[in-house]
Amino acid sequence: MTQISVPVVRNILQANERLAAANRKRLEDAGIYAVNLMSSPGAGKTSLLERTIEHLGGRIRMAVIEGDLQTSQDAERIQSKGVQAVQINTDGGCHLDGNMVQIAMDSLDLGHLDLLIIENVGNLVCPAEFNLGEHDKIVILSVTEGDDKPSKYPVMFQQSSVLLINKIDLLPYIDCDVEKIRRDASRLNARLEIFAVSCRTGEGLEAWFSWLEKNVQEHKK
Amino acid sequence: MTQISVPVVRNILQANERLAAANRKRLEDAGIYAVNLMSSPGAGKTSLLERTIEHLGGRIRMAVIEGDLQTSQDAERIQSKGVQAVQINTDGGCHLDGNMVQIAMDSLDLGHLDLLIIENVGNLVCPAEFNLGEHDKIVILSVTEGDDKPSKYPVMFQQSSVLLINKIDLLPYIDCDVEKIRRDASRLNARLEIFAVSCRTGEGLEAWFSWLEKNVQEHKK
Repeated sequence: MTQISVPVVRNILQANERLAAANRKRLEDAGIYAVNLMSSPGAGKTSLLERTIEHLGGRIRMAVIEGDLQTSQDAERIQSKGVQAVQINTDGGCHLDGNMVQIAMDSLDLGHLDLLIIENVGNLVCPAEFNLGEHDKIVILSVTEGDDKPSKYPVMFQQSSVLLINKIDLLPYIDCDVEKIRRDASRLNARLEIFAVSCRTGEGLEAWFSWLEKNVQEHKK
Repeated sequence: MTQISVPVVRNILQANERLAAANRKRLEDAGIYAVNLMSSPGAGKTSLLERTIEHLGGRIRMAVIEGDLQTSQDAERIQSKGVQAVQINTDGGCHLDGNMVQIAMDSLDLGHLDLLIIENVGNLVCPAEFNLGEHDKIVILSVTEGDDKPSKYPVMFQQSSVLLINKIDLLPYIDCDVEKIRRDASRLNARLEIFAVSCRTGEGLEAWFSWLEKNVQEHKK
């Protein structure tokens, strides 16, 4: 079989790193823990946010930055839960970057926050390459996407601290080997924490809530 | 709500257009019809290819160019069906471009082909911006991704000639309004042909096979 490798040059990454470092310092100074939530379109980022707000919203002061190509549907879904939400429309751009998040943070009340969740554009490729200043990257993989995804999209899994395997309520109806996902993802990233969950039924989410709350407490001033 | 728009500059598109036009001429000269198959990760591009080869492989001479960040799993899946397949590994790159396809075409026997199917990197954003020389773009959306995707990822739906709504066998187990997908996608692109299918059960695929075969015949020399 013919196999061709095409290297892709990315000069803009260095400039982004400087902006991400500045965002990180602002978050640290304010005692805010921040996560960058990434996945393919429709894997469940906004549903996870809704569940997380319902569960932790009462005792953790949180805000959300929503990244989308178009529309403010996701920010509206989040605001209806009573949480500060800023919508970034990338106008076709395939990922958030440090500059966009810096601008979005300007419109948040950072003095009264414990947790910032940044929901990236739905894309399992590009967002992994751009640090935003977050403390941890979180990747969601839906079981409906198939168990070959960690090996085919490795960067996302290498960069993340947590993998949420979502939609496990659909496992009886599809061909997906969750153990293969766990095995392949752990091989790419030995420190990856993996939680199998269903944002629809709530199954497995307690472990995620505990993980998140522990990190918020550790970063509080 | 605060809403921020960030324009993204793409200077490289013009250079890509020239390469795509050269690819297109090569295809036309050889009487080959070519499609560019795009979707989120795991929506069913390779499964659709497998079904299409099983159904049309006997009477249409076809080849496949497989785009992936890493691995040659998909090309191997296709080759096991007895079809010429070239794997392009983008080494992290989020889309195929005209140059990659030009190089891949060099290793195909164009004189003995009727149909070239290019399976793009799994990504609902970037691939829509890069013409490869194909005659038609085909987008697959899995019902598990949710019915809000056309409005949130409009470019892909505006650029495509066909939308395949896949995994309809899972509709009884999820919240997804197929009519909303049809309506929103048609509003973005009035000429879009829409087929609801299940690559797993085969339901609805006949309409896709007929559409494809008709186009192959029309482009034959």
